[in-house]
Amino acid sequence: MLVTSPPRMALTTDMPATSLTDAFRRDPVQAFRSVRARTLALTEPLAIEDWNVQSMPDASPVKWHVAHTAWFFETFVLRPHAPAYRPLDERYTLLFNSYYVGVGDQHPRERRGLLTRPTVPEVLRYREHVDAAVIDLLGSGDEAAVRSLVELGLHHEQQHQELVLTDLLHAFAQNPMRPCYRSPRADPRATTVSDAARPHRAATSIHAPTAQQWFAFDGGLVDIGHTGDGFAYDNESPRHRVWIDPFALAARPVGCAEYIAFIQDGGYHRPELWMSAGWDAVKSGGWEAPLYWQDEGDRWLETTLGGVREVDGAAPVSHVSWYEADAYARWAGARLPTEAEWELACRDLPVVGNFVESEALRPRGSVGRTDGVAQAFGDVWEWTASAYAPYPGFRAAGGAIGEYNGKFMCNQYVLRGGSCVTPASHMRATYRNYFAPDTRWQFSGLRLARKP
Amino acid sequence: MLVTSPPRMALTTDMPATSLTDAFRRDPVQAFRSVRARTLALTEPLAIEDWNVQSMPDASPVKWHVAHTAWFFETFVLRPHAPAYRPLDERYTLLFNSYYVGVGDQHPRERRGLLTRPTVPEVLRYREHVDAAVIDLLGSGDEAAVRSLVELGLHHEQQHQELVLTDLLHAFAQNPMRPCYRSPRADPRATTVSDAARPHRAATSIHAPTAQQWFAFDGGLVDIGHTGDGFAYDNESPRHRVWIDPFALAARPVGCAEYIAFIQDGGYHRPELWMSAGWDAVKSGGWEAPLYWQDEGDRWLETTLGGVREVDGAAPVSHVSWYEADAYARWAGARLPTEAEWELACRDLPVVGNFVESEALRPRGSVGRTDGVAQAFGDVWEWTASAYAPYPGFRAAGGAIGEYNGKFMCNQYVLRGGSCVTPASHMRATYRNYFAPDTRWQFSGLRLARKP
Amino acid sequence: MLVTSPPRMALTTDMPATSLTDAFRRDPVQAFRSVRARTLALTEPLAIEDWNVQSMPDASPVKWHVAHTAWFFETFVLRPHAPAYRPLDERYTLLFNSYYVGVGDQHPRERRGLLTRPTVPEVLRYREHVDAAVIDLLGSGDEAAVRSLVELGLHHEQQHQELVLTDLLHAFAQNPMRPCYRSPRADPRATTVSDAARPHRAATSIHAPTAQQWFAFDGGLVDIGHTGDGFAYDNESPRHRVWIDPFALAARPVGCAEYIAFIQDGGYHRPELWMSAGWDAVKSGGWEAPLYWQDEGDRWLETTLGGVREVDGAAPVSHVSWYEADAYARWAGARLPTEAEWELACRDLPVVGNFVESEALRPRGSVGRTDGVAQAFGDVWEWTASAYAPYPGFRAAGGAIGEYNGKFMCNQYVLRGGSCVTPASHMRATYRNYFAPDTRWQFSGLRLARKP
Amino acid sequence: MLVTSPPRMALTTDMPATSLTDAFRRDPVQAFRSVRARTLALTEPLAIEDWNVQSMPDASPVKWHVAHTAWFFETFVLRPHAPAYRPLDERYTLLFNSYYVGVGDQHPRERRGLLTRPTVPEVLRYREHVDAAVIDLLGSGDEAAVRSLVELGLHHEQQHQELVLTDLLHAFAQNPMRPCYRSPRADPRATTVSDAARPHRAATSIHAPTAQQWFAFDGGLVDIGHTGDGFAYDNESPRHRVWIDPFALAARPVGCAEYIAFIQDGGYHRPELWMSAGWDAVKSGGWEAPLYWQDEGDRWLETTLGGVREVDGAAPVSHVSWYEADAYARWAGARLPTEAEWELACRDLPVVGNFVESEALRPRGSVGRTDGVAQAFGDVWEWTASAYAPYPGFRAAGGAIGEYNGKFMCNQYVLRGGSCVTPASHMRATYRNYFAPDTRWQFSGLRLARKP
Repeated sequence: MLVTSPPRMALTTDMPATSLTDAFRRDPVQAFRSVRARTLALTEPLAIEDWNVQSMPDASPVKWHVAHTAWFFETFVLRPHAPAYRPLDERYTLLFNSYYVGVGDQHPRERRGLLTRPTVPEVLRYREHVDAAVIDLLGSGDEAAVRSLVELGLHHEQQHQELVLTDLLHAFAQNPMRPCYRSPRADPRATTVSDAARPHRAATSIHAPTAQQWFAFDGGLVDIGHTGDGFAYDNESPRHRVWIDPFALAARPVGCAEYIAFIQDGGYHRPELWMSAGWDAVKSGGWEAPLYWQDEGDRWLETTLGGVREVDGAAPVSHVSWYEADAYARWAGARLPTEAEWELACRDLPVVGNFVESEALRPRGSVGRTDGVAQAFGDVWEWTASAYAPYPGFRAAGGAIGEYNGKFMCNQYVLRGGSCVTPASHMRATYRNYFAPDTRWQFSGLRLARKP
Repeated sequence: MLVTSPPRMALTTDMPATSLTDAFRRDPVQAFRSVRARTLALTEPLAIEDWNVQSMPDASPVKWHVAHTAWFFETFVLRPHAPAYRPLDERYTLLFNSYYVGVGDQHPRERRGLLTRPTVPEVLRYREHVDAAVIDLLGSGDEAAVRSLVELGLHHEQQHQELVLTDLLHAFAQNPMRPCYRSPRADPRATTVSDAARPHRAATSIHAPTAQQWFAFDGGLVDIGHTGDGFAYDNESPRHRVWIDPFALAARPVGCAEYIAFIQDGGYHRPELWMSAGWDAVKSGGWEAPLYWQDEGDRWLETTLGGVREVDGAAPVSHVSWYEADAYARWAGARLPTEAEWELACRDLPVVGNFVESEALRPRGSVGRTDGVAQAFGDVWEWTASAYAPYPGFRAAGGAIGEYNGKFMCNQYVLRGGSCVTPASHMRATYRNYFAPDTRWQFSGLRLARKP
Repeated sequence: MLVTSPPRMALTTDMPATSLTDAFRRDPVQAFRSVRARTLALTEPLAIEDWNVQSMPDASPVKWHVAHTAWFFETFVLRPHAPAYRPLDERYTLLFNSYYVGVGDQHPRERRGLLTRPTVPEVLRYREHVDAAVIDLLGSGDEAAVRSLVELGLHHEQQHQELVLTDLLHAFAQNPMRPCYRSPRADPRATTVSDAARPHRAATSIHAPTAQQWFAFDGGLVDIGHTGDGFAYDNESPRHRVWIDPFALAARPVGCAEYIAFIQDGGYHRPELWMSAGWDAVKSGGWEAPLYWQDEGDRWLETTLGGVREVDGAAPVSHVSWYEADAYARWAGARLPTEAEWELACRDLPVVGNFVESEALRPRGSVGRTDGVAQAFGDVWEWTASAYAPYPGFRAAGGAIGEYNGKFMCNQYVLRGGSCVTPASHMRATYRNYFAPDTRWQFSGLRLARKP
Repeated sequence: MLVTSPPRMALTTDMPATSLTDAFRRDPVQAFRSVRARTLALTEPLAIEDWNVQSMPDASPVKWHVAHTAWFFETFVLRPHAPAYRPLDERYTLLFNSYYVGVGDQHPRERRGLLTRPTVPEVLRYREHVDAAVIDLLGSGDEAAVRSLVELGLHHEQQHQELVLTDLLHAFAQNPMRPCYRSPRADPRATTVSDAARPHRAATSIHAPTAQQWFAFDGGLVDIGHTGDGFAYDNESPRHRVWIDPFALAARPVGCAEYIAFIQDGGYHRPELWMSAGWDAVKSGGWEAPLYWQDEGDRWLETTLGGVREVDGAAPVSHVSWYEADAYARWAGARLPTEAEWELACRDLPVVGNFVESEALRPRGSVGRTDGVAQAFGDVWEWTASAYAPYPGFRAAGGAIGEYNGKFMCNQYVLRGGSCVTPASHMRATYRNYFAPDTRWQFSGLRLARKP
């Protein structure tokens, strides 16, 4: 068998991180090429076997992500808008449909890992086929609908870039050999564990974050949701009014050292700290710590995209479910912020932080004392107290594309701010991510709120 | 074996329906006796076998309800406050604990139906034992804490009175013989199905409700939640401010004839109408109509507490999940109201309606044209768009009693207004009931909201 | 509700234990009455709730057993042979059909416990209705087919008499209160545990059985299976020839003290002693001892039909699966006998032993030294090494009655000899009982075989 | 990533097909090289993704098979017998242990497909590392124990060669694209389906096999089991005496056209033809035909290693479970032979047939009229009526190697004769294969027996 290696490509790009909207308006074809190339760049360290594995129904194989993001452009841009377009293989319509029932049947989600064919080279060919047609179409005129759909497709692609990394981490963590996706860039604060099987038993000190600071907000009648003419998902609209009581917000996310204190105080063994459903999850899942952590007696190790490492006490805790976030907050005498509080507190901050472009691929130690709320963007998605629901007056788009966000508006909680595997240009203050409350494989952490 | 029949007792009582708080303040012992007697009155039509059956983990045997409500007084009133109290059997502490981990272990919920012992007479003896001690304690002094806990216990008892009926209906519906709990009082509008096995095939006309009316509300900054000094559960507090956009609310709940139109329009076969999780529930559960309905081709039958009957098109649809309520609303071009909207619209209405005291034991045909929102109380619990969450500043009570409501504040939706099996004196406009979105065995229906 | 108590009746009867065939030929009506009455006599100690409980899909409620045995006569005797017979309720045809697909649909096995109706009095009425018609039919002529079917029905009834007791024991064992079915007759060797919740911690000596003896058999070409004109099930025929190598058989079943030695030697923690499927069962079921045993540190308790008692080391071990029997035999350097070996060794022994008529309702201490194989009948069913398969030339009866035994001839193992809850007149040396290898709720034990 | 392609190699070899024993005795090193090379030759048509997929817990990834067969030599030959041997990676001990608890823990069977690492090149390196050491050891002396273990390892390897093909077929059949493993050699009788998605609707005639012939056998006292000094597995011993009644055996396996007649006669819808457990499997699995068949209305298609093809009526039916074989036999008025009958009838036939070396990779049309039992070897494994059990006097080998066969001797049925994916040199008349009665992914068919 001959495998065409994907082109080697630096993970970093020349695209201004903070504005995919600007980049796309300036040069749609260039923005398209750039975002599409980033997806393939992520696959550079992989063996072919790594492309095809599916470690749980919630995760998908890298190959499927790579094909599905092409399918998205084919289905929503090319088929309706490029009359001359000829699909490469009609069978891909079913294979790479994620959940759009308006498009037709889907290959069962939990069986994506069984698709050894099409092979990686065939999927890359599919991608090239689609890319050529999209670039052609973008160059052929100035149809606003096409541009709008391509822009949506690029944001969609960025979401899958994040999933490629979270899903790979989950798959690698199932392998007793604990493969390393990519060695992290040098970080003087980190302790690399050279031999996970036999960790040194010497006592190690956990770096603690600086003491938590709190910042007060008046609240009041506030407008929440997307505004302006940049890109946003439909679920960020319509902008609407909410009443917010005065509150205080922590300066930074909860750190690992703080979370270890919760564990050591019996956090996972005290039902009074948990929602009833959370306590059920603790027991049925045998939870004793965040996902990927292992207790080595005198220290905590965690499986990361850079291999097995010692937990960094100063870094934001990650891979905790909403249940754990909620229980921690109760233990700490605080609570999770609502999404409106979070948005009010963070909407004027610059969207900078430890995003995927830093190549750290894990949350990093927190900042020191600050003058205000910090570390809101990047590092970890922050669970909020808000159940994911439509904003008042929300209307999904017509047709299958309307399934993008709207049909998931129940049984989930909103997270804000992006993580260390989110592309920087993907993020904004009004962005609403959402996952079920038992979700742990995302880079999800928390920030505390309380009365001022 | 000799079974002591529970005392025959009319279901109706002389207690003023609208104020358990008033009744309790006037004469706590009399209120206690009255509420307690009502529970036993509900068991009057039962065979002993009916007391013990558990048809699903969410439902409990009648015998267990009867024992657990005694356990509640024993555990939270007598043990802490009546030093001389001697439990009848220490083993009941575990057997009849529902979910209070602060009290200790629980017999597994899904195994309650396996408890053939203690027998019904033994449980009635337990109940008498507890009752005597509570009455003794109430008469012995004026301790506010005791009175407050007894009052809570009576509201708790009323909740279980409702569950006795919903759980019996579910159990009877599993039996191909379709036992009848109690023949309903004569109702000229109802068509009784004399022989469910061979229904007459003559075409029958579905009584349609009067055309829906809409009433507009301005909204604005509104205070929501319990106020005053009457009893309320902890989850109705604290009273707090919310912003409500202008909205319109339907005059009455959605009727069965309207719901049949939804079915006939393919409602259960059109995924675009459903939340994704709701669509999964439709497929995995094989849902084609509300729970307890069966399609007889030319008419719909439903299993009720009064046996198998023809569906009454004019009555509010019941036994639909939140998913079905949400899908119906979308189909109808409307939406579910938020709980704040519901409370604002209904809080000045008198708390009267088709409650359990009517002995109809099913939702009844709707009112005709009205001057405002009607049928808010009784008939069916109305699903709202609001995920069940703590009100801002909510604090659960200390100790095990704090588990009453607080630990369930996730993964559920709020319902308002009470149903045809709710005791009238149990209801108020700020009352928040809550169930998971796939729940169908409660008397749950819906009312539409939309832009004004 | 008024419950008509079943007639009080002594468990023992005047029917000659060793020959239901003889009794039936002498006086079919009397034999019919006698066997039928024994079923009801078994229910004498029960509360009504006990009649209706189903503790697992493999077990059935007593009420269902009582109704099903009437159904059997109605379906296979009255409907085809008594033209004037009028069923009491046609709906019972489905409700009380066990597994005869040739008769029609069945109420799902695992949902039998949900049938609170018909009530116990109604089922007893059904039984009386059927009994009268059968007695009428038996008196009306001399049709051989009828007599043969009634005789089969009586043996069928006896099987369900045994199941009534095994299923009740299982249900009672699920109740933390550990109800006692009936206090055993005085037995000087037994230690009754007066207070299971707080057992005395004094050291107690386990009565050990006498040392095991072995008896050698030559084997050779042997005819196996039913012969003569007495009653036998179809699966005991045709009599056929088998070759048996020389072997030795233990004088008595393995005793509890011997089994405790296996446990203490790590039997449940040494995979090399187990079939692979057995080891899976040990791990998934958390098996550490026979079903119903509990380890009290200095002694073993077991839940019996006479309540919680101390394990009697001298009594045959019971409630072990085939997997446990097989593992024990391997540990002991022996093996299980084949069913042909068992039959050859035991076919000339008198069919006497600790059957249900002794009212011990548990296996009893073993005999002392003997002159040959002993304790083959009664006490415990003895697992054999033989997978349950048709004898060469086996043909099931035509029609639905042919489903009685034939369709279960896979995935099960043969047991021989009857138990302490088997009616004595039900047993014979050629009798083949069969259960899946993970079955534990029957009174199943083992006897060792080896090379001579 | 660079992938080292496995060496291209013809599937056929120069090793005498009928005697691995002879070849091994003549030149152990050459026999070792030859068998090991055959495993890699099977992987020649694969994409790397195909190596890693696991389509169900019963199947394993090709990569795992390739690694596990190396592990077998490392664990049972090199570690105990080659003191200087240094394992390539100690972590492989756990990863590639199938089920030998005596060796230590195992990576969970159902999670083998998650092992993307070690990669294919790394596994091939592991294999080379082990091969070199085994060849070294074989050349270094004449230790009988080593030779015996290596010989066992080669037979073990041949079993996994068969599993590579059955597991790949299962995986490919899960993919809607229906990949083709290898186009079959030209076969004039076969109809290749060029376009599975749109099959031609023209009526096609099913080739029927020649009419079935029957051959009678006297039976009597017969010695069964392995004899002589060639290689055999432990479960073929000890040779022992059995009594066999006279019987007749069909000349050839049941053909597809005959099986289609069973389907058309309602075979899958008539519970009276099935074992009770088989009927449950039919309903729960939705079985309507052999695994891999699809009903195209006017013809049957099947997924094969050569892609989707029309069913060949003259070829032995394959991919049927024991339940289906048993039901078919009952429908046909016959039965399955016992394994002793099969062995008696076939032991003097030459071990030739459609084995893997033919490269047909599917059962082929049957022979015409014959003078005796034919087609016993190759084509399809033939289910017998015999539950898999130890032969009288069976003793497993000591140590972990004793787990090879012995611990699976329950809940399975014996199959005889080998299939179209079995290496010819692997087969002999006494060979006992075994699978659970619901197994369908093997090339399993049946041959009928009856009274003479």
